[in-house]
Order: sequence, then C-alpha cells, then structure tokens
Amino acid sequence: MIEEGDRVLLLLEKRRTYLVEVEGEKAFHTHKGFIQLKDLVGKEYGSRIKSSTGTEFVALKPMIRDYIFKALRRTQIVYPKDAALIIIFSGIGPGSRVVEAGTGTGALTTALAFYVKPSGHVYSYEIREEFIQTALRNLQRAEVSEYVDIKKKDITQGIDEQDVDTVILDMATPWLVVPHACPALKGSGTFVSFSPTIDQVVKTVEALEEQGFVDIETVECLMRRMQTERGKTRPETLMTGHTGYITFARKAFK
Amino acid sequence: MIEEGDRVLLLLEKRRTYLVEVEGEKAFHTHKGFIQLKDLVGKEYGSRIKSSTGTEFVALKPMIRDYIFKALRRTQIVYPKDAALIIIFSGIGPGSRVVEAGTGTGALTTALAFYVKPSGHVYSYEIREEFIQTALRNLQRAEVSEYVDIKKKDITQGIDEQDVDTVILDMATPWLVVPHACPALKGSGTFVSFSPTIDQVVKTVEALEEQGFVDIETVECLMRRMQTERGKTRPETLMTGHTGYITFARKAFK
Amino acid sequence: MIEEGDRVLLLLEKRRTYLVEVEGEKAFHTHKGFIQLKDLVGKEYGSRIKSSTGTEFVALKPMIRDYIFKALRRTQIVYPKDAALIIIFSGIGPGSRVVEAGTGTGALTTALAFYVKPSGHVYSYEIREEFIQTALRNLQRAEVSEYVDIKKKDITQGIDEQDVDTVILDMATPWLVVPHACPALKGSGTFVSFSPTIDQVVKTVEALEEQGFVDIETVECLMRRMQTERGKTRPETLMTGHTGYITFARKAFK
Amino acid sequence: MIEEGDRVLLLLEKRRTYLVEVEGEKAFHTHKGFIQLKDLVGKEYGSRIKSSTGTEFVALKPMIRDYIFKALRRTQIVYPKDAALIIIFSGIGPGSRVVEAGTGTGALTTALAFYVKPSGHVYSYEIREEFIQTALRNLQRAEVSEYVDIKKKDITQGIDEQDVDTVILDMATPWLVVPHACPALKGSGTFVSFSPTIDQVVKTVEALEEQGFVDIETVECLMRRMQTERGKTRPETLMTGHTGYITFARKAFK
Repeated sequence: MIEEGDRVLLLLEKRRTYLVEVEGEKAFHTHKGFIQLKDLVGKEYGSRIKSSTGTEFVALKPMIRDYIFKALRRTQIVYPKDAALIIIFSGIGPGSRVVEAGTGTGALTTALAFYVKPSGHVYSYEIREEFIQTALRNLQRAEVSEYVDIKKKDITQGIDEQDVDTVILDMATPWLVVPHACPALKGSGTFVSFSPTIDQVVKTVEALEEQGFVDIETVECLMRRMQTERGKTRPETLMTGHTGYITFARKAFK
Repeated sequence: MIEEGDRVLLLLEKRRTYLVEVEGEKAFHTHKGFIQLKDLVGKEYGSRIKSSTGTEFVALKPMIRDYIFKALRRTQIVYPKDAALIIIFSGIGPGSRVVEAGTGTGALTTALAFYVKPSGHVYSYEIREEFIQTALRNLQRAEVSEYVDIKKKDITQGIDEQDVDTVILDMATPWLVVPHACPALKGSGTFVSFSPTIDQVVKTVEALEEQGFVDIETVECLMRRMQTERGKTRPETLMTGHTGYITFARKAFK
Repeated sequence: MIEEGDRVLLLLEKRRTYLVEVEGEKAFHTHKGFIQLKDLVGKEYGSRIKSSTGTEFVALKPMIRDYIFKALRRTQIVYPKDAALIIIFSGIGPGSRVVEAGTGTGALTTALAFYVKPSGHVYSYEIREEFIQTALRNLQRAEVSEYVDIKKKDITQGIDEQDVDTVILDMATPWLVVPHACPALKGSGTFVSFSPTIDQVVKTVEALEEQGFVDIETVECLMRRMQTERGKTRPETLMTGHTGYITFARKAFK
Repeated sequence: MIEEGDRVLLLLEKRRTYLVEVEGEKAFHTHKGFIQLKDLVGKEYGSRIKSSTGTEFVALKPMIRDYIFKALRRTQIVYPKDAALIIIFSGIGPGSRVVEAGTGTGALTTALAFYVKPSGHVYSYEIREEFIQTALRNLQRAEVSEYVDIKKKDITQGIDEQDVDTVILDMATPWLVVPHACPALKGSGTFVSFSPTIDQVVKTVEALEEQGFVDIETVECLMRRMQTERGKTRPETLMTGHTGYITFARKAFK
C-alpha cells in the first residue's frame, strides 16, 4: 500500500513515466492535468488514478531499473542493458564489496548498491564535487545510500580498499586504474570496464594482460525493441546503435 | 583460500574452463594432463597450478555466471546475457518472492536464487521429473538450493503462491500462464517471459493486454564479442544471432 | 567537366548534400550563402567552390545512390543498403527484364533501371496517380526514364509481361502477387519482396511455397556507421534498427 | 533452355547447391545419387530432375551471387552482402572503369565485371601467381573474363590507369594505395575499401583525409536470416557476426 513519503512511478502510457514522492499537499502537474499526490496514500501499487483532466495514470512501485532511468541527470547515464551485463559479468551479489569509478550521477552506483544489499558495500570514487551531490540525492531517492561511500578521490592515483570482490570502471581512462585494481582485488576477483571507444578498450586490455589478469573478454550488447501487434509485428525503426564496450577480466596471481 | 569440498573453476585458456569439486584423492583429467585436486587446498583463488604435463591452469572461484554456463545440461540453457536482462527488468533483488516456470536444468533458477538471497525465495514449476533431478543437483552445486522450491506441477493449471513480486517464464506456452500470473502477482509486480519465436511473443502480449497489464515491452538482445589485439582489433566472426525475445510487463488493477 | 543542364551534388559537409541542376542564371541558396550555378560550368567534377559567404562546397557527380537518397519524397523510400541487397539477390544486370510494384516515388525503380541498362527494361506497376508523376520526375532526373514503363495498374490483378527475369515487390500485400509472378517469370527467375512486418513475410513465404518456388530465404540487414577518428573510433550512437525483411525465391516448374 | 556447355546450379535443398558444367557424358555424383548431366540438355531452367536414387534436384541458372558463393576458393571470399554494398556505394554500373586489388580468387572481380558490362572494364591487381590462375578460371566460369585484365603488379607501388571511375580495395594495407588512388581517379570518382580490422579502417581514413578525399564514411553490415514458418517464425540461431568494414570516399581536387 502506498504511504506518505513513498516514491511512486506514475505511468501515463508506454514508456512515459514520472518518478514522484508522495509528500503532504504536493500536486504533480503534467500536460495531461495534475494529480493530488496525497490521493495516492492508501491505494495499492498498481492502481489506476485519474488526473484533474480525467487522464488515467497507473501508480507503480519504482524498481531498480526505474531509478537508473530516472536518475537526476547531469551526464551520460549507463543503460539498463549495460548495467545488467556489468552486474552479472562482475559476479556481484548480496555481500559483495565493490570499488567503482567514476560515480557520475550515481545511476550505476545505485544498481550496484541494490545488488550487494544487505551485507555488501560499494566504494565509489569521484573527483567532481557537483556529481557527488547529485549522486547522493539519487542514492537517497533509491534508498540505497547506506550501502555506498562516495569518495572524493582520483582513482587513477590509487585505491584505498583491499580484498575487494570487484572493480567496476565507467570513466575515460580505465587503463590507468588497472595497476591499482590488481592489488586491491582478491584473487579471482573481477574487473569490469565500460568504454565507448575501441581505443579505450585496447589500452585497457593491454594493461590487464600486463598485470596478469586472465579470462579477459570484451563484448558489446545491442538491444532492439519489438513493436508487437497481431498482423503488424516488427522491430522498431529507431535503435541505439552503440553505448559502449564492456571489458571483463579476473585477477590471477602471477 | 581453497578448501576441501569447494567448487573451483579451472581455466585452461580463454573460454576453456572446467568446474570441479575438490574432493579427497580425486584427480581431474584433461587432454593437457591431470591435476591432483587436493593440491589446490590451501591455495588462494586466482593461483596458477601446473598439470602433470606442465600445462598451466588458473584456479578461479566460480561466479553465478559460471554456474549458469556450466549447468549440467539436458536442454537449451538460458544465455547469461538474457539472464542478466531478465533479472534487471524483473526488478528482483534481495528479498524478492519469485515464481518461475519451467525449471529445466535450473540454470535460470540458479541465477534467480542467487539474486533473491538471503531473504527471498524462488518457486519453480516443472512437470518433467528428469529435469527436476538435474536442476536440484545444479542448485546444490551453486549452493542456492535452500532458496528454491521446485514444484512438480503444471503451471498452466494454476499458481499456488500469492502476492509474489514477479513471475518469470521460459516455457513453450507462456500465454497460458498469464491468466494465473495476474492474480498471483502483487499490484505493480512484474511479469517476464523469454521466448524464441515471434508467435509466442504475439500471443503472450495479447494475453497480457487482456489481463490489464501495463508497461508491456518486448526486446531482443544481441551480444557480440570483440577480438582485442593492438593493430588487429575487430568483432569476432561468429556470433549467436538469436536466442529469444524477452517480454516484460507490470500488473495493474483493472 | 560540368556542363549546362547537368545535375550536380553539392557537398557541404559530411552527409549534407544538395542535388541541383545547372540551369542558366539560377542560384542555389543555403543557410551558408548562395552559389551562382553557372559558375560550375567548365569546372571538373570534384572541384571546390565557395558560396557568397565564403563557405566551401564540393561539386560531385551524382551517383545512383545519391538519386535514391535524393528522390523527391512522398513516401517511405527504400534504403540504399536494401536496394543493394535486392539488386544482387535478384541477379539483375545489364539486359534483365524486371517487373516491379509499387513504383512509389521511383527510388528503387531508378536503381533497377540503372542496373539493367542499356538493353534491359523495368515494368513498374503503380495505382496511385500522384506517385506516378513524382516517379517520372525522379527517373528523368536520374536519366533512366527510357528504361522504364510505369503502368497504372493494380498488380494484384495480374501481370501483363511474360518470361521476365525477376519480379520485385515493395508493397503492402506481396502475397497476393505471388500467383501472378509465377507464370510471368522465366524458369529459374527470381522473386524478391521487401516488407517491414513479419506477418507479411510469413504470408509471402507461404504463397511462394504453394506455387512451388524454391531456394526461398528471408534476411534482414542492419547497417551501422562508424565514427572514425584516431584514438576515438567507435560505432555511431544512433542507428536505424529496422527497415524491412527481404524475401527471395526462384521459380521452379512443378 | 539448357544447352551443352552451360553451367547449371543444381539445388538439392535449402542452401545446398552445386555448380556444374553440362559436358558430354559427364555425370555429377552426390551423396544422394548421381545425375547424368546430358539429361539436362533441352530442359528449361527451373526444371526438376531426379538423381539415380530418386532424389529431386532443381536445375537453376546460376546468377552473379551464385558465382560469388561458388568461386573456387583459395582464400576468404567477400560476402554477397558486402559485394552488394561495395557495388552500390561505389556507384559503378554499365560502362564504369574500375581498378581493383587484390584479385584473390576473383569473387568480387566477377561481380564488378558483371555490373560494368558491356562497355566498362575492370583492372585487377594481384601479386600472387597462384591466385591469378584461380581467378581467371572463376571469371571464365562466370563468362565475364573479357571485361577484366588481371595484372601481376603490386598496387602499393602505383596504379597504371588514369581517369578511372572507382578504386576498390580488398587487401591488407589499403592506406598504402590511397596516394596512388587519388591521381588515378577522375574528379568525384569513388574509393571503396573493405577491411576486417578497425586499425586498417583508421589508417585508411587518415590517408584519405590527407589526400583531400571528401564524403568519407565507414559502415558495417550485419545480415541475419529468418526461419519462416507459420507459428514458429524467428531469426536463425547462428549468424556471421563480422566480415569487415566498408570505407567509402570521393575524390575532390584540393
């Protein structure tokens, strides 16, 4: 049941959603009229509600994917498809200790924190103060801030943590972090890097080979949406052709 | 540190791995000589070890992705890329209650159990006795069997559970389960179906629309591996062109 | 050398081109100033010319691909990647006799005419008068109108030609034409159909099987552009995810 | 009608074809029995014929695509999808004068010759004697050898021809040919290069920019086959994930 203080994802129509917080007398205004948010209190998630102009919205419970998509944006966010692969390739799960850089707006940080709950922790490095504030707000909104330390440090200068399960990088120069990632990781620990360009991939793979990492592989993932309608089913015309390459490796002792 | 009874992933070379159990005097034989498994005991994960013929292996700690790939096979397994999307699109995480069908060899079941740990649970429906036994062994190997109930029931006849967070289907006739999934799910709960053919997708989407589900979408995911080598970098020649479509929806009250 | 009456493709910058006709005192106006077209006369193709505001343009000789892209549009045009596959899969070349429907704006018609020159011919069916006029202008612009007859007839009612080498369809109901394509084609002649939806493909393939066609196959083609810059090379972010499926078959006697 | 001396493509089943020459008393032997080739004489193309064991074959007329696929192989051949794009992007057609390197087994050469017929010509450079012989046989089989000169010369040392319409490269070091391609091409003439690796693309694009080429672009093309069957339609599982990148440019005077 929806309570005062809850975050609710209001769905207007296919892929048109709004993340709101149910707070006192606040109303939520759209081009389809406004919704008095206190009217949501006491309703079940999944209920339909009408705006002032009679347009129907569905009140959904936000999921981790929604928090990624709805991160307060100041920079390019990681795509859910890539976040999904990063998470399963990194092997993280409840209890994992993860080092991440850079934090950015905290979209990937939020996902990592969600999956290491309740006993794991994320140490997220970021040097740009303005991102740190945004990321903190995004983590709080998703209710995972207690599982994260955001550190205002340049990760290319070193990693403070020891015996971590995984190091996950979404930054311009991942190869500069590889020499620090190696000693910070447990044996068999995973390294994951997300990079838009091929040159970043090549430099990172070379740095990994030099440090003795094994099981190194790089993939890219293309996701295509289908328009499903009896008699007219087809892939959608527009598609994101590229987000980035994901490089994965495991630490071995030399 | 590796202990008696542990499962170890022996890496011979890129994408050539063996999942073994360290058990007493057992040796592991490959075409590159044998390894006396008790020699692994006391070593760190990530250590290198030589076989009887001097070939080097790396002893890695198996991750959830490895358990998926190394499931004792009797049927088509779900691909890690698809498992990754299913998990993040379904919104499951620690504490989620999940209904799944069919269990098959338990590859996806294993992944689901891993991500709902420690307080969540997976109810997995399977009617074929021979799969149930395989799945149980796979779940035990991955040490997640306590988070799963495998039920020998035909899910097209009904779902016993109530107020579940998500229903995940990898079976021939998902559309027959939609009318049962709807009452079993919490409001705003998620439905996810994985199907190889377009016809399955169309029938399932129609059934979802009829039951009032919202936020229905279908995607396919193509993963391409890169060969990374300075001066010779290129995508790999061979690629899996299709595994299946993933349909996703959320329950709304009518 | 550029002469009065020639068509010239003015290239402003990457993928920003204008197709003009050099005609008397006409000037060509862009947001980057104007070009006095008679100034092009006597210049070599490939020359650079400055507009009134000093912006450099390159005067290129239009190719068949440019005529396809620059067709006066009234409808969805076929993509050059698809035109390329249609041409090579259909086996057409100098001398081929081709039946096509619908003409639309004549983009594909133009390409077909270009490749059957000088001794082949294209018979193009279209029922919508307004398209016929546009197509004629596009064919004239590309200087291939003598190789084409546009026929104002409904091809689902029958094909007048006999012993044609290929029948090429880009229309809503290709399956209705299959029974007419079969007798119109030479033995071993090719049938090619371009359709956006899967349902069209299935119906067309079924009709082909019923008529005894052999070597039936359906493909789709995804083209991705690369951004090539030393140190920053990567696929482009945006991509056309779907244009249509191409179905190909050859006539066999029953 | 099939005559003595003709080449015939015998189709056994989907994508199982054999290219044979109808020659006197020769029989063609398969694992499905043999066919007396003289029995084909006088039959229409598209006829069905039974082997000695009663298996049905269809006698098709080979098309340019078949000659590409059935080239006597000694090296990696160019794929029809790439040949199609190379042809339409290069703008070649009846009458074009084309420089090509390397000839290899002549698969692409055959396609180029077919499309420049009857008044155009292909000058194909190859340094490896053994390929030249194979290519000549392949060109003769496809009946296009009169439109081609194979030259035993190293194209990186220079191009003899002047005022050519296009230079097409499928070789290891295309960037070394760019400085020779520029003076050999007509103004507005096209340069096309096919390369498997990204590093080749980057070097070639840089060389093109240095020589003042314009309209430079690089694409890759993914082709996926569909399995079309009512109620079971889906993309095929296996797919060629990469063949190569195609770089295209036009000559401009500096």
